[in-house]
Amino acid sequence: MITFEQEHRFSTEGAGTIIDITDRVSDTVRQSGILTGQAAVIVPGSTGAITTIEYEPGLLRDLPEFFEKIIPSHVTYSHDATWGDGNGFSHLRSALVGPGLTVPVSSGRLVLGTWQQIVFLEFDNRSRRRKIHVNVIGR
Amino acid sequence: MITFEQEHRFSTEGAGTIIDITDRVSDTVRQSGILTGQAAVIVPGSTGAITTIEYEPGLLRDLPEFFEKIIPSHVTYSHDATWGDGNGFSHLRSALVGPGLTVPVSSGRLVLGTWQQIVFLEFDNRSRRRKIHVNVIGR
Amino acid sequence: MITFEQEHRFSTEGAGTIIDITDRVSDTVRQSGILTGQAAVIVPGSTGAITTIEYEPGLLRDLPEFFEKIIPSHVTYSHDATWGDGNGFSHLRSALVGPGLTVPVSSGRLVLGTWQQIVFLEFDNRSRRRKIHVNVIGR
Repeated sequence: MITFEQEHRFSTEGAGTIIDITDRVSDTVRQSGILTGQAAVIVPGSTGAITTIEYEPGLLRDLPEFFEKIIPSHVTYSHDATWGDGNGFSHLRSALVGPGLTVPVSSGRLVLGTWQQIVFLEFDNRSRRRKIHVNVIGR
Repeated sequence: MITFEQEHRFSTEGAGTIIDITDRVSDTVRQSGILTGQAAVIVPGSTGAITTIEYEPGLLRDLPEFFEKIIPSHVTYSHDATWGDGNGFSHLRSALVGPGLTVPVSSGRLVLGTWQQIVFLEFDNRSRRRKIHVNVIGR
Repeated sequence: MITFEQEHRFSTEGAGTIIDITDRVSDTVRQSGILTGQAAVIVPGSTGAITTIEYEPGLLRDLPEFFEKIIPSHVTYSHDATWGDGNGFSHLRSALVGPGLTVPVSSGRLVLGTWQQIVFLEFDNRSRRRKIHVNVIGR
């Protein structure tokens, strides 16, 4: 049994940026040498989220539009009164989707569909330098 | 320390189908022989999701109605223009809920409430043959 | 490789209560002696949820307001007809956010941002005594 960890860093352009991180997570799994187990991915921070989508141009428009509809960015939230940084909407979206995801590993590969990618959703209202952390455990 | 994996297959009737997969996941845990650890469940594919509910007839109506309200199926999404398969709503619902769930294992059993079942939510707009993958790790 | 489990108990004041459980989960990780691995947290029960937020007074108001907007508590759901306990909204909110979260452990600490806390969201319509279960696995 092995456990292996790695960080990946990238930049975003603020709310609406969706980054396909599948290759980065797959690289970590490959380097771990683990064939059967679990890969846990998290973003440290409370204005981003991790989920899976089919990474294609249509959904890269649909998903931000959906979040804008249910948690509008132009509304003033109580959070904004606390810090004055105007990103209350970012925090709400992040809490809703969640900061992490665990993907099983089988035969040395992430168990995902062909049209399913692990994505980082940037919800903050400004460009950010981001770090995701991956832990793989198994044998 | 052991890691053990298994797939379970079933069919759905398209968006609105909710399948109780608790017994299948419990079977995998029992077969693994693991007493203390973690069971990770995922659906490979980007138009389904995994969560828990009390599996009773009322919620089997409420949950699809809720998703229909916040992500309507009759709206045309940008995704639909990419593929023409009209299931943009399915992808959005799946990204929102998420494709997987990890449940701790204690004394050889899934740590769940009495009225809490692990469910697969079908969001696609047609019948599907589905596969879920379970990885259990522990001792 | 080690796996270690622990339960934490607390009371809530019903829907809208948000409990910062980060220190409890960190304590479990510390007691486990695990330096690198994964901590899985779950609430057994289908009317609560686990996610992360920046635990500050503004968001403690914003988050309940958001859930009240998208899944109102004053609406009658089909679930309410089944049991007559009037908490259909609680179940829907719980299914949406999800009952658990896995956080990687690195250098003996939970991998979280400085302004990111693990929280239990109470959605039920009455005070509850709650239990969360934590399983840590790693070396």
